[in-house]
Amino acid sequence: MRLNQASDFALRLVMQCAMQPDITHRIDHVVKQQGFSKGHVMKLVNQLARCGILETVRGRGGGFRLGRFAKDITVGDVVRAVESDFAIVECLRADAMQSVECCFLPACRLKPLMMKASKAFLAILDDMTIEAAISGVPVPAALGVKESE
Amino acid sequence: MRLNQASDFALRLVMQCAMQPDITHRIDHVVKQQGFSKGHVMKLVNQLARCGILETVRGRGGGFRLGRFAKDITVGDVVRAVESDFAIVECLRADAMQSVECCFLPACRLKPLMMKASKAFLAILDDMTIEAAISGVPVPAALGVKESE
Repeated sequence: MRLNQASDFALRLVMQCAMQPDITHRIDHVVKQQGFSKGHVMKLVNQLARCGILETVRGRGGGFRLGRFAKDITVGDVVRAVESDFAIVECLRADAMQSVECCFLPACRLKPLMMKASKAFLAILDDMTIEAAISGVPVPAALGVKESE
Repeated sequence: MRLNQASDFALRLVMQCAMQPDITHRIDHVVKQQGFSKGHVMKLVNQLARCGILETVRGRGGGFRLGRFAKDITVGDVVRAVESDFAIVECLRADAMQSVECCFLPACRLKPLMMKASKAFLAILDDMTIEAAISGVPVPAALGVKESE
């Protein structure tokens, strides 16, 4: 059972912003620091900005930073913002009745169970804010980038 | 967020056995009925047999059937039996400290949170037995195979 890599990377992006809330983070720096591809980071920043988790800053010296306080963002918020697929099993996909060949599908009781399990999973992720997630974690040396660099 | 395809297929195998507990199911039939590959079914049957969820019957007319009553098998039992990876995120893998490049890894608080969320997910799956999962589901025509066929 896995989250998509997008969630993993998005959590690191948001944690990085939360650890250094006073600077505007630049995509090129994040690409270098975290080893993600530029296209991937740009897509994630846009998705997170659409939900208000990040805000983008245009122009020279532009980039992104937290859109609200780290105490007001849960781990679940970040995962929901970028995880495209909570289908858990094939037959929970929106188009499943057309595309999934499973003879149990029309009457199967697993579908509501899987949806309930997925909600329980996310509810636990909502128990922790990004502020709590980074609490006590020293700023890693790799993140020590000043805006003037 | 997805379970591996193995869990999806294993649940269908076990449900099929539970719907027709009095017959020995043959791998060739299941391959035909459910559209899985033979190698995949053989691997799943072995994994489920190791946990006592299925039992295998050797020789001519051999195959597999439930290893215990459907009321004594939960959906979570089946998923645990075949899902190889509950790592949720990259850094929960056993070899993560060596292979994952994440500057938060040494002190990150997300790891225990993800483990807790994974447990909450499985706890919900343990709330339903295979007997309950198939309750009220009519035996699909495709499963109407007699042992004598």
